[in-house]
Amino acid sequence: MTFRDDAAAAVDWVARYLEGVGELPVLAQVEPGGVRAALPSSPPAHGEPFEAVLRDLDEVLLPGLTHWNHPRFLAYFAISGSEPGILAELLAAALNVNAMLWRTSPAATELEEVALDWLRQLLGLPQGLHGHIEDTASTSTLAALAAARHLRPEGAVLCSEHAHSSVDKAARLLGMPLRKVAVDAEFRLLLDTLSDELAGAAAVVATVGTTSTTSVDPVPEIAALCEEAGAWLHVDAAYAGSAAVCPEHRWALAGAERADSLVVNPHKWLFTPVDCSCLYTRRPGVLRDAFSLVPEYLRTSDEDVTNLMDYGPALGRRFRALKLWAVMRCYGREGLQELIREHVRLARLFASWLEETPGWEIVAPYPFSVVCFRREGSDEENEALLERANASGEVFISHTRLDGRYVLRLAVGNMRTKEADVRRAWELLQRL
Amino acid sequence: MTFRDDAAAAVDWVARYLEGVGELPVLAQVEPGGVRAALPSSPPAHGEPFEAVLRDLDEVLLPGLTHWNHPRFLAYFAISGSEPGILAELLAAALNVNAMLWRTSPAATELEEVALDWLRQLLGLPQGLHGHIEDTASTSTLAALAAARHLRPEGAVLCSEHAHSSVDKAARLLGMPLRKVAVDAEFRLLLDTLSDELAGAAAVVATVGTTSTTSVDPVPEIAALCEEAGAWLHVDAAYAGSAAVCPEHRWALAGAERADSLVVNPHKWLFTPVDCSCLYTRRPGVLRDAFSLVPEYLRTSDEDVTNLMDYGPALGRRFRALKLWAVMRCYGREGLQELIREHVRLARLFASWLEETPGWEIVAPYPFSVVCFRREGSDEENEALLERANASGEVFISHTRLDGRYVLRLAVGNMRTKEADVRRAWELLQRL
Repeated sequence: MTFRDDAAAAVDWVARYLEGVGELPVLAQVEPGGVRAALPSSPPAHGEPFEAVLRDLDEVLLPGLTHWNHPRFLAYFAISGSEPGILAELLAAALNVNAMLWRTSPAATELEEVALDWLRQLLGLPQGLHGHIEDTASTSTLAALAAARHLRPEGAVLCSEHAHSSVDKAARLLGMPLRKVAVDAEFRLLLDTLSDELAGAAAVVATVGTTSTTSVDPVPEIAALCEEAGAWLHVDAAYAGSAAVCPEHRWALAGAERADSLVVNPHKWLFTPVDCSCLYTRRPGVLRDAFSLVPEYLRTSDEDVTNLMDYGPALGRRFRALKLWAVMRCYGREGLQELIREHVRLARLFASWLEETPGWEIVAPYPFSVVCFRREGSDEENEALLERANASGEVFISHTRLDGRYVLRLAVGNMRTKEADVRRAWELLQRL
Repeated sequence: MTFRDDAAAAVDWVARYLEGVGELPVLAQVEPGGVRAALPSSPPAHGEPFEAVLRDLDEVLLPGLTHWNHPRFLAYFAISGSEPGILAELLAAALNVNAMLWRTSPAATELEEVALDWLRQLLGLPQGLHGHIEDTASTSTLAALAAARHLRPEGAVLCSEHAHSSVDKAARLLGMPLRKVAVDAEFRLLLDTLSDELAGAAAVVATVGTTSTTSVDPVPEIAALCEEAGAWLHVDAAYAGSAAVCPEHRWALAGAERADSLVVNPHKWLFTPVDCSCLYTRRPGVLRDAFSLVPEYLRTSDEDVTNLMDYGPALGRRFRALKLWAVMRCYGREGLQELIREHVRLARLFASWLEETPGWEIVAPYPFSVVCFRREGSDEENEALLERANASGEVFISHTRLDGRYVLRLAVGNMRTKEADVRRAWELLQRL
């Protein structure tokens, strides 16, 4: 077999997968260890044809996969591997460049700058922000807090009780004390409490779209407090930042233009395959001071160029900009707006069904595409309902805990999700 | 256009690229800002066809790329995007799974365990190691040192002056003091000096295949010292670990079985597209203690399963195991051995030409596929030679500094590199 034959077979596999993924059980229906047991325990001595990989992908791996690219994946934050993004990953793997230094890939470095500037414009953010791509928001937040620590080495990190666990992880890695601030009835960071705790802090992480409820912290007011206290403000808009592509959702990023750093993940709600986390900063010099280390073997004679390895923890940097750029080009501003609007509409529709139906309760505001709800009854009953729904293979939804109660979460975010999919989830939940 | 048409065009692009990459200038021949200036400054309002992406890839990006997948890319550590690896990335992007929890992708989690165990066997490492994949060795080393710090919070990190800059970066992020140990005449960490410095240290990083010269630290002796001192031993075999696929190179990993952690990067010398860094540890419980944080929204009812998010800094984890598994299957043990052996042969051949030719000097041992050398004359003359060679577009080689002298480095590692390519590099260097 030649590469062209293997590639045609792989493309055919992908096309059939994308056409048929909606027919598969969303959540893998396997027992722990089942996939491992079905695979040879040792590598082959002689090479096998690529078609053997595709065969095992169908026979062994596929039944053991939870399908994130499924229209009824409605858990966590639902994501999408869009078609232009998927093909861009093929191209990036073939090029296999490392955008660590400008010289090692001028076009990858400059496309990253261009793509991040395009995204900045789509989100309505001001000019002059420096942007680069990390793998995940965990790394972006780690980089932002490392910059904050560079300016105030002994200072603490403050965030709300609803901030993402990646803030805890980053603070732990960096050895920064972390203090959690209580939230109001709508799960937004309480300004008075923040204000009391802020003296001497190195950083505040404000969240635009918390993981449990997609609540939005009062960023303009937090920005004012941070400016006064000299603390670094990092805005975690990993999920909800993408909503700002639509003018009617742009309120969510109000105040973000005053942040020292801001993370938005196109791999969450902007139809870009994982991994693609965009970190913006008004203060690239501080990131550079925190991270830049240039050993002799990485010195180049190029002057006045951006070497993106200087802005984050990793040296090696894959060509992630290509997929983000392909997505923005192939959907355009209007295409992206249309998808976001449809997801918000579907979430509101689902919420309206909950509201109309006795025995169901909406337990948090739903400003974007995630609805937190529960069925009348105990935590155990709700947990059992979730387990039954997911075990059916028809949908995958997740849960959280709010004010001590077990709560179900339905998250719309996959581009293949249609009204019929959300309706099917609702009918299933009612039936169970 | 349908996805199938777009995908066929993308595959055709990749096939033509791989067939013709050897005819392109290796090092991008562009001025800073040139690529950026050739791209629209704003995203399109309406979606464009994918063919527009391919057109700009040819017209704007390709001339601005340094071609890492080129047979005469002989700089840094030369790497390969092999054909099975490239196609596996296409598949992974289509699946778009996140292997953070077992439940969110049982097959991705278990394939990662299987692939890491296959690789362990290929490298002749003992059973019982826990392995997982990080993006780069920078992150793997960061994770290993975070585990070491968890056990000895105030301890320093020790490594040789020739250890990779990622050790500096990780120590800086973790707030761990770093002490550099001098090397012997062959650039290997000096045991006596290490021994003097070791009391109370949290970790030692020993390097198997340093970045400048591919020197190998005396790992068995370092392991004995670390055991005595209670320090965590991390072995950075990011490049040279892959050589252990061949029994005759397995000496390089001697002692690694006593390390607490070990990193090997299949994206360096095992023909796997970036990014794929494998971190092994004998003490997974310590990594888990250092990293595990399970917020309510990530709790599952699964017991006795491995949730790979618990072993490193990032929560989101792409399906990187697929490409590593595809490479091991499609080449097999013998196919991988053949490629590694050919690269070592080519490096020795190049070294033999240097030895035979007056005016050239080999300045370090060359145990693997990298040769450090220089032309008689000043540093400036050698630097000018490098710049001229690279500016020709015919080859890309890099440099380092050894014992204060500017030194050229030729690294064989791309699977498309043939004897004729190395000969062409040699003829070019002689001509210039």
